[in-house]
Formats: sequence, structure tokens, C-alpha cells
Amino acid sequence: MKKIIFILFVLFSCIIVKGNDGYKLWLEYQKVSAPRLVRQYNEAISGIVVKSQSATLKIAESELRLALERMLDKKISPLNIAAHNAILLGTPESSAEIKTMLSSGNFSLGDEGFVIQSRRINNMTTTVIAANKDIGVLYGVFAFIRLIQTHQPINNLSIINVPKIKNRVLNHWDNLNRSVERGYAGISIWNWHTLPGYIDQRYIDYARANASIGINGTVLTNVNANSQVLTQEYLVKVKALADAFRPYGIKVYLTAKFSAPIELGGIKTADPLNQEVINWWKNKCREIYSLIPDFGGFLVKANSEGQPGPQGYGKTHADGANMFAGALEPYGGIVMWRAFVYDVRVQKEGEHFTEGSGGEHTQTIASGDRFKQAYAEFKPLDGQFKKNVLLQVKNGPIDFQPREPFSPLFGAMPQTPLMMEFQITQEYVGQSTTLAYLAPMFKECLDADTYSKGKGSTVARVIDGTIDGHTVSGIAGVANIGNDRNWTGHLFGQANWYAFGRLAWNYDLSPETIAEEWIRQTFNNNDAFINPVKRIMSASREAVINYMTPLGLNHIMGTSHHYGPAPWVKNAGRADWNPVYYHKADSVGIGFDRTKTGSDALAQYAPEVRQQWSDMNTCDYRYLLWFHHVPWNYKINTGSTLWNELCYRYQSGVDTVRWMQQTWDGLDNLVDKERFQHVRMLLGIQEQEAVWWRNACLLYFQTFSKMPFPPGFEEPYKDLSYYQSLKFPLAPGIGGNL
Amino acid sequence: MKKIIFILFVLFSCIIVKGNDGYKLWLEYQKVSAPRLVRQYNEAISGIVVKSQSATLKIAESELRLALERMLDKKISPLNIAAHNAILLGTPESSAEIKTMLSSGNFSLGDEGFVIQSRRINNMTTTVIAANKDIGVLYGVFAFIRLIQTHQPINNLSIINVPKIKNRVLNHWDNLNRSVERGYAGISIWNWHTLPGYIDQRYIDYARANASIGINGTVLTNVNANSQVLTQEYLVKVKALADAFRPYGIKVYLTAKFSAPIELGGIKTADPLNQEVINWWKNKCREIYSLIPDFGGFLVKANSEGQPGPQGYGKTHADGANMFAGALEPYGGIVMWRAFVYDVRVQKEGEHFTEGSGGEHTQTIASGDRFKQAYAEFKPLDGQFKKNVLLQVKNGPIDFQPREPFSPLFGAMPQTPLMMEFQITQEYVGQSTTLAYLAPMFKECLDADTYSKGKGSTVARVIDGTIDGHTVSGIAGVANIGNDRNWTGHLFGQANWYAFGRLAWNYDLSPETIAEEWIRQTFNNNDAFINPVKRIMSASREAVINYMTPLGLNHIMGTSHHYGPAPWVKNAGRADWNPVYYHKADSVGIGFDRTKTGSDALAQYAPEVRQQWSDMNTCDYRYLLWFHHVPWNYKINTGSTLWNELCYRYQSGVDTVRWMQQTWDGLDNLVDKERFQHVRMLLGIQEQEAVWWRNACLLYFQTFSKMPFPPGFEEPYKDLSYYQSLKFPLAPGIGGNL
Repeated sequence: MKKIIFILFVLFSCIIVKGNDGYKLWLEYQKVSAPRLVRQYNEAISGIVVKSQSATLKIAESELRLALERMLDKKISPLNIAAHNAILLGTPESSAEIKTMLSSGNFSLGDEGFVIQSRRINNMTTTVIAANKDIGVLYGVFAFIRLIQTHQPINNLSIINVPKIKNRVLNHWDNLNRSVERGYAGISIWNWHTLPGYIDQRYIDYARANASIGINGTVLTNVNANSQVLTQEYLVKVKALADAFRPYGIKVYLTAKFSAPIELGGIKTADPLNQEVINWWKNKCREIYSLIPDFGGFLVKANSEGQPGPQGYGKTHADGANMFAGALEPYGGIVMWRAFVYDVRVQKEGEHFTEGSGGEHTQTIASGDRFKQAYAEFKPLDGQFKKNVLLQVKNGPIDFQPREPFSPLFGAMPQTPLMMEFQITQEYVGQSTTLAYLAPMFKECLDADTYSKGKGSTVARVIDGTIDGHTVSGIAGVANIGNDRNWTGHLFGQANWYAFGRLAWNYDLSPETIAEEWIRQTFNNNDAFINPVKRIMSASREAVINYMTPLGLNHIMGTSHHYGPAPWVKNAGRADWNPVYYHKADSVGIGFDRTKTGSDALAQYAPEVRQQWSDMNTCDYRYLLWFHHVPWNYKINTGSTLWNELCYRYQSGVDTVRWMQQTWDGLDNLVDKERFQHVRMLLGIQEQEAVWWRNACLLYFQTFSKMPFPPGFEEPYKDLSYYQSLKFPLAPGIGGNL
Repeated sequence: MKKIIFILFVLFSCIIVKGNDGYKLWLEYQKVSAPRLVRQYNEAISGIVVKSQSATLKIAESELRLALERMLDKKISPLNIAAHNAILLGTPESSAEIKTMLSSGNFSLGDEGFVIQSRRINNMTTTVIAANKDIGVLYGVFAFIRLIQTHQPINNLSIINVPKIKNRVLNHWDNLNRSVERGYAGISIWNWHTLPGYIDQRYIDYARANASIGINGTVLTNVNANSQVLTQEYLVKVKALADAFRPYGIKVYLTAKFSAPIELGGIKTADPLNQEVINWWKNKCREIYSLIPDFGGFLVKANSEGQPGPQGYGKTHADGANMFAGALEPYGGIVMWRAFVYDVRVQKEGEHFTEGSGGEHTQTIASGDRFKQAYAEFKPLDGQFKKNVLLQVKNGPIDFQPREPFSPLFGAMPQTPLMMEFQITQEYVGQSTTLAYLAPMFKECLDADTYSKGKGSTVARVIDGTIDGHTVSGIAGVANIGNDRNWTGHLFGQANWYAFGRLAWNYDLSPETIAEEWIRQTFNNNDAFINPVKRIMSASREAVINYMTPLGLNHIMGTSHHYGPAPWVKNAGRADWNPVYYHKADSVGIGFDRTKTGSDALAQYAPEVRQQWSDMNTCDYRYLLWFHHVPWNYKINTGSTLWNELCYRYQSGVDTVRWMQQTWDGLDNLVDKERFQHVRMLLGIQEQEAVWWRNACLLYFQTFSKMPFPPGFEEPYKDLSYYQSLKFPLAPGIGGNL
């Protein structure tokens, strides 16, 4: 009979596994099958005790029940009194036992932290998941679920966990027509047309997924903003989403179009110091907060790539940000002001601005080195921002390239809370056809030492506020989420969403730890599967760097859609949109001299940082061409000439992708067919794209180096003109292309 | 122990049912639970016998196995020899037994028909699913599966089933950038960017769903065509889809942009009689067929709404269609030439045409009555088309309105095979927020009598070729499919896809039969659920007609996006884009006089048809305002004055929606929560939209009738100016709005 049950289980499991389209993300909650674990978990869990009718605690209880019932394959009952082996959930407000427990210890949980503790209550063994606030309990529940998902012991637990950064936010570059700028996973999951009447199950599952990794805010709209979202008609829709997300601890934010008072208010100006304009935004905030009392605030892209801003009125970024901050202040809202600026066009007062496609129509040319612009523009404003303004700075000085040095702004503005902006969507990292695990990229930046207050002044400690004593802190990730059935286009894109959330909560986690967690939760706990997949993930980003932009190359992709290589482009609208501006290849060598003999951008860094990159002989080869124009035959510190090293890197990137293919192919029987095929086919495309990058870039650079490919190098099968002739007018992620 | 198994089953079933997002369509294959049926089915089925390695027969076998294993919850084994209670699948080629059987009877199955017969073979009871060709076997398998899905007996079967129409085709109005014109279910499921390397599981499931209802062709691209799809780069992608669909009996077709020789070929003209142009298309067809040997052919929209065509070169539609037909002829391809024309602009030779958004830039005004234009243009060409041209005619003379009389072209061109074009996507029928079951609309048209060869000359018999003796026949449905998780936006949109396929196969099926089939397959076999849902579906289209366009009103929706009411619009680019052109409301009355005293469009019909509609006193009230300008206080044949009847109809439409809501709310416990909530929320939106239509239309028409609302009528809560002020710049389905 047991055999029959076993067969039935296998049968059912097969059916369930068969059609796995990845929709459930890392919340698969697969049945635990190892007998030892099943026994251990079953012994430790008899049921759930929770007293409270708050929406968040109800969700905590039902999520825990759902997870346990699936994983342990038994009915989980709510218990009314603390029984033996109960799981007790709650806050001091909802539970006397928890009140006693939390007041007796020194937990410092804050508003979002939690404790998970195995302890005896009324002489019964109990697992307590406790927090000061309901949302902490939900976070604790997800942490507890994760223990079982990843097959860890749940006896004798004593876990205290508090997020290091306060605002952990996704930025959706989603337009109101549902196209997503730099989106490669279908269209926006926000269906504005059917809101507020229709609450898609997907909104709830989005909130669950985010809560499970601690993301507590979402900017619903594109930084290239549309003022329409600020109309009453749309705010009612925003409220519907805010209501759906609130129990999951997620605040909604909107992007504020600077010119909205002109477009919606009929005012002749958007001057941030004009009283009519100030009043318009004050009234707009009053309207928003009357609908959404916990509205998070605004994200603003101003005076950048064609977006209007305060400089159009002769005012500063601080003037602009402070106007919003003043309007939001009474309600506790914040302004996230983007530091991504490289546009020096001065806009005329009263000019009407329309939604741009990324500033292609800008006329003027940025002077000097774009690398230096954000620092040059914002550093002098340090100290001038209101308390509820955070400056949102991209990880690197240019634009989300596969590898960038950290932005020199980090550490340079001690009086201003700086937020991190990472890009989760793979605009420059192969888009949706590329397996590139980005946690190493995030981590590399967070761990970088700014030396702003001496050794150990890491970027992470700048943005969490500890170095400069800020009480507000934030980190943003540009979302890779769309309405594809698996949310992210490439299944492994899910890992980047996951990793962003986990690092935002705790930047001390290692990329390997996060990868392993994600694999176990998403796929299975089979070491024969986990280990190779972890190796694939760990190698993936470096592979992409190698076959796209090795040795510190950057920004040599196709114009506008950013798909594929185009290092030869030199006729784009402004100098710093051209790949040739960035690589500066010539008969002598390649790379951008940013030392004293060049643009001296290195001067924006602390002396210790400057020193580690300023000498061509000692500079880490990974950043070499970011800072130096290096002769083709120069022997770099890897031991090869630059040209040979470049060839080797490009080839090695391709080789790694082929190794990833082989490794994945060997996992055929360890994962369901649908997900296996999905990844396999995409790796096939990635291999072709890697070869394309290698061939196009090396053939082009060879026209300068005039040097032969080293022995053993795989010869390109097409000539340079072929690669230069390729056009992709329908590549996704821009304009109307989806 | 049995109890435990039962509990386990229930538990698993719950988990499976819980998250039902509708992805599986009518192929849910739910477990049969009624013990009597389980016993009967289990007794009748021991396993599957099939001998052949053809891709189609392999699919037939695996689909049958999948379905039986899920529905009967037992392992289904392949059998090598005919055993007792085996299901034998095959063709005369694959099975000697079937060869014997088919040669002994008079089955007339053709290429696609099938027979399902219970018979004794080698003294064993066997269920035979047989056909002349592999695809017939697959159709037979789906028919057999449907018997079990709908809980019908499978003993003593003797079913012969042959499709009545040869080409049963979906038309996707999908653009290459993945936006879908008049699409309300996300974006195109064709991800051109990742083709050909990535074959989405969705492509396979699309093919399965279509094969299950007998659809055997798909036009992948929008009738407002983009010539880019004819480039080598895209044809390779088309081939990948064709390869995926082929084993399911589905041919791919493309829309041909008339001006492609100019845009792609660098030729100065697209004149269909120019030899260079002719050669260009011949070469293009050779290229296509070298990749896709069974390519179906072209669908062409020419000289309509801004699309280029032969008239731009002083040539006729026949000249244009015949050019394509000549190029396709050697390979057996067909041309589907659309008769939807109302554009008399004469284009200049050599003019470059760009993809239009629906002809908004057309300058000239159609003269006379647009109702008459297709007939006037095409009837004189009868007899001039090559054999492989089908003229694709919309069901009604205008444009997919909630109710139209049948197009007068049906029956009027005996020498030309006419294809039906239905619209499955709900452009004018409430889009994705409206439950409107369209089978009654399709059926109403198919059953209409043209009297072209005397009584009984129904539209169905015109298009199936029997009346005029054509061997080629076709029917097209404009697809409502997008990348939403449930494919069609509104779950009940699935029923329209299903119904189109079923009627295309056999137009004798009743809408009620089809609805019941669909409900049983999609939801469950519980009468307490089936009957009310069937009532909802049966009432739904008439409800929409009532609250939108009762009594023969038509084309009074919002301009361009067609969302919501706008009967007041009178300033659109050309006369016949204006609602006022169609309803002609004035102080006297309302409606379009198409009798002899008016445009005399009725003269385009056979005398018997003309007679049934030409007298205001006897004309069916459902078509009244299509043909008559009726005074407000005229007592129509329902017994009320026109004004009161109009008010009554509008109110009754709203009332029916509210009844639908109540009825659905009562089904709470009979369907999974996700689908229950989905429909419930959308019905809530539909109710608001119904009230909006009623109020806006009646308030506006009241400005002409000057008559009060009858007693008991629910008073509008807003005034007319409010409704007139509503704007929907982001409504989906047009331009970049998704």
C-alpha cells in the first residue's frame, strides 16, 4: 500500500513538475522527500499559533500554512493555544508570550527585523517567529520557510535578522501604455486599463515574492515620466495597487514629471521656486495622501536625457528636489532624486516638455568626460538638500555597463544620504537571451572601498548611512519584471531579482550563498544539480564581460536598442553616445586616459582609490581601459601584450558560454523538461551572440592594432562589413518595440 | 488506507486547482470522479495501440495518453498488439486493421475527417480512431478525449466526422514589434526577437489548442502589413514556427504588403502587371517555399484604410490578387484577398507607402453609403479571379458591429469562392472587460439565408462552396489571443476562440452545445455550475447589443480606440468614421434609410431578403435602424414607441449584466477561487461600462427625441457633458497602447 502511495506521489509530482513555466519563482514550495528531514520537520511542527486579525499577520499565517502543507505534505492546523511543537507568530501587541520574550532580551529589531527562536513556552517546545511590527513577522515567516525550502535544520534556532538598509525599492521603467523601457520580459504587469476594478492575481504574487526577499517599495512608473499618472483618474488606480501591496509591507512610489504643473495644472512655469508651482505640488501631495496615506514619495529624473528639470529655470537640482521634499514632508514621504545627469541643455521657461525616447533629440554636446559629470554637478550641492531627499546614484559613473568602477560620488557627499541604483534588467548584459547572474556585480560595487573615512569605508557602508550617520538609507534596482509567464524572460533573470532583494536586506551575503538559496528554492535540493548550476551562475557574468567588454572596455554596444556589438559607431547625436568616444581605439592603442595626462577623472576619487588605478603597470586589468590608453603591444600585468590578452579574453568568454551549455546539457534528468529546454535554447542563442560579439569587436579593433589573431584563436567566419551591416530596427525594449 | 489515498487525492487536487490561471484553456483534462464513469472508462480503455513514427501520430498518441492519465488517473501503456479494450489509432498506411476497416466501409473521410468506431478486431473489443491521413487521427483523438472530458459514454461508438470548410484559419493582427492591433490580452505571443532559436512552450500549446478544435491555418501577421516579415531574416523565424505547427496540421500564412517590391526590392513600382514586380513576387515565393514547403499563402488587405494596392496603379483588385495567385500557384498556395474596402483614394505610381495606423491620414471621403461599397467594388469582378484566390468577406457590411445583417456579397459572386471573416477579438463588443459569448453572432450570420439559389442558400452553404460548386473554401477568425496568462484577457474570451473553431469545422453545431462542451472541458461537469454558466453565456451577446447598440444601431463607439460610447462624434477625418453618419438621429427620428427612399443598399440583396427588411412595419426590430429612419414616437412591431423601446432595451441590457453578476456570485463554491474572482471582478467592470453606455447614449439621443425617460427607468447620475468629456488616450489595442 505504501508503494502505491509512493507511485501516486511520483505520478502527481510528475504532472505538477511537467508544465513548470517558472511562474512560481522561488516560492515553489516543493515537497521535502528525504525521509530524515521529513521526520525532523514533522516532529518540530504541529501547527501554527497566531492571534491577530491584522491583514499582514493573516497573510503570514496563510503563507506559512501554504508552504508547510506543500513541503511537508500534511494538513497544518491553526492552534488556539500554545501546544507542543507549535509555531508561534506575532508581535508584542498580538501575543503576551512574545511581549515577555522581546522585553526580556536585547533584540534591537527595529520596525522590520525579526527573531526566530526555539524556546520552551508553558513547558512546551515552541518555535517563535516574533517582531516588533507585523511586517517583521511576515519577513520572519519567509525566512523560516526558506530554512525548510533549503533543507536546513529547524531545531534550536536562534536567529536575529534586521535589514541594513531602510528603503529597498524596485524601479519599474514601465510606461502607462504598458511598454517597458529596457524591458525584455513582455509588457508591464500593471494593467492600467482594468485598474482599479480588476486586481490581477499577479499583483498579489508580485507582492508575495517581494516580501519574501524583503523588498519594501516599488516605483510603479518609468523615470522618463508621464504626468498622466498624477491625474485623479490614475491615482485611483495607483491606490488600488497600494491597497493590494500594503499588507505585504510594500509602499508605492511614483515618478514625478517635473513639468506636470504645466501639463496638468495649466500653470505657465514649472520653476521650483515659483509659489504657484509649489502650491500645485503641495495640493497634489495632499490629494495623493488622501487616497494613499502611506504613499512612499517621488522618484525624479530631472535635467537628464531630455527630461525637464530645475536647470530649465536657472535653478539647481537642490532647488528642485527640495520643492518636492517640502510637499511630501508633512506626510513622511521621501524624494529619490536621480544623479544620472549628463545633459547640459538649458531649457527655456514655459517650454512644454513631452515624453522623450531617451533624449535622442538633445542638441548640445557634453563637454569633457561624461565620467565626471554627476560628481561635478552634485558634489557642490552637498549639504543643500532637505532631510527627506535621497540622491539616487547609479553604481558606476557611466551607465550600468557589465563592469564599471564604483561611482566617485559614493563617499564624496557626506551630508547627503546616497541611494544605490542597480540595474536588474539586463539592458547592457545580454538582455533576455543571456544567462548572467548579477549578484557578483552588485557585490563588487557594494564591497568597493571609497576610503572616504579611511580604510573600510565601503560603498555599502556609505549607502546604509553608517559612515556618515544618516538615519535614512536606500537601495534601488531597476526591475527586470514583465508579463512573461516566468516574469523575467530568462528564467535565470529571476535569480537577479532575488539576489537584489537579498543583498538589499543584507549586503554581507555572498553571491554564492544567494545563488545556492535560489537554486534550492527554485529547482531542487539535489547536490548533483545545485553544484553545477552554481558554477554556471558564478562564471556567467565574467563570461559576459569577457565576450562583450573585457579589460575595462565599455559602452560599445548597438545604438539606441543596445543589442549586440557596434564599437564602430561614431555618428550618434552627441559625442558621448558613440562607442568610439569610450574605447578611443587608434593606431597606438585603446582605452580612455582618465589619469592626469587625460581627463583626470581619477581625481574625483579618494587618494587611495586613485592610487590603485592611476598607474598603467599596476592597475587591475579588469579596469585597465577605463583609465588608460594602452598601446597594443604593451605587456600588461597579466603577462601578455594588450592585443593578445584582448583576443584571449574574447575567446575565453565564448569558451565559458560553451562550457555552460555542456554543463547544463548534463542536467537533463535533474530538472523538469520545460525549464530544461527553456534554458538550453537560450544558452544556444547566447553562444551565437557571444561569437558575434567576439568576432565583431576583434575584427574592428584589428583595423587599429594591425596585429594577427594569436595562435589557437577561432577565426571569424564573416568579415567586419557583415557585422557592421546588421540592423535591428525591431529589437525590444525601446519605443514601441516590446 | 483507501481513505488516506482519497485524502491525498483531494489534497493534491486542491493544490492543482488553487492557482488556476486559465492557461490550459479547454484542455484541463480534469480527473473524472463519478465512480460509475470511472468504472466505465477504465473498463473500456486498457491502452493505446499505434504503429508509426510520424510526428503527428506520435503527438496523437502522447496527447491521448496525457489526457487519459490525467482524467482516469492511471498509467496508460502503449500496447504493441491489439489487446482487449485497446484504443487503436492510425491510418491505412500505419495499420493493416484500419486499412481493412476503411476499405470495407463507405466513409468519405477526405484528408481531415475521422471515424471513431467500437468494433471487434481479432475477437477483441477495440475502439478504433482512424483516418485517411495522420492529421485526421489527431482530430479523432481530440474528439475522443472530448467525449471523456464531457462525461459521455464511449461504448458502441460510431462516429464519422468530416469538416465542412477546408481552410479554417486564425488571423492574427500582430505587428512585428509585438503590439497587437485590436488586441486586448497583452502582446503578441510571437516573440520575433528570440525566434528562430527559442521555441516557446506556448507555441506548442497554441498548436495543441487549435488542433483540438480543428483550426488548420494561422496568419501570423497583421493585415496592416509590414514588409519586413518577407525578408530572409524573418522568413527563417517564420519557418521555425511553421516547423513547430506542422505536426498539428496547421499551416502558416503571412500578410503580404502590396508595396513590398518597392520597400524590399528597390523596384520603382508595385504595379501588379509590371514584369519586374511579378518576378519579384515569384522569386519571393520560391524563397518562402524553399524554407516552408507547405506554406499556406498570403492574406492581403489592399486599397483599404491607407494600405497600398492595385488601384494605386489603375489596376483592379482582380489584377492584384491574380498576381499573388500566379506566384503561389506552383506550390499550391492560396491568396485570401480581403473585401473590406471603403477607400477610394487613388494612389500615385511609385509612391512609398508606410504602415498606417488604420488610414487616419486618408484624405478623400467615401461617397454614398459605405454599406454598399464592398459589393459595388467586387461584384463586377466575379469570374475574374484565378482559382486559388478566395475573397475574404467580413460577416456584415460595415465592421464587426455587435449585430450586423449579413454582407450582401454572400451569394452575389457565384464564380468566386468567398471566405468568411469573423472577429473573435472583441473590438466592438466590450474588448477584454466584457463577457460576450459570440457563437450566437457567428451562427446568426452562418444561418442567414441569402436566397441566392432559392430558399436554403444560407451563408454557410455559400462559404462551404456547396451552393456554387467550389472545391476550395475558407473561414477566418480575427484572433483574440495574446500573451496574457489566460491567452484571451477575459477567461470567457476562450469560449469565443473555441466556438469559432468548432463552428468552422461544423456550422451545424448550436451555440448552446458548444457552450456546454466548453464549460465542461474548461471548468467541470457539475450541472449546478454548467446550467447557470450556459444561461449567462447565452444571454451575454444580446445583453451587449442592448446596452450598446439596440434595434439596429451601430458604429456609435469612441473614435479610434472604439472603447465606450461616443454617438455624438461628428468631426472625424472622413464622413463614414463618424457615429452621426451611422445613426442619423434628428428631431424626426433615428436610423439609416437604406430602402429605395434612401441609399437603397437593400437592392444589393436577393428580393426575398430585401423584402423581409424593406418595410418599417414588418422589419425585424433587431435590424430596424440598419435600414430605416424611424420616427421617435413611431409604434414599432414590439408594441412600444421607438423611444420607449430604445430606453427599455438599454435598461434591459444593464439589467441582464446585473443578473449575470448575481448568477455568477452564486457559483462561488463550484469553481476555483482564482477564476471565480477573475470573472467576478470583470463583471463588476462590465456593469459599470453597461451603465455608462446606457446613460451616454440615451442622454445624447434624448437631445433629439426631446422625450422623457419612461417610468421605472433608472436615471443617469451624470449629465451628458460628463460623458462627452471622457477621454481615453491610453485605451488598449491601438498604436503603442497595449
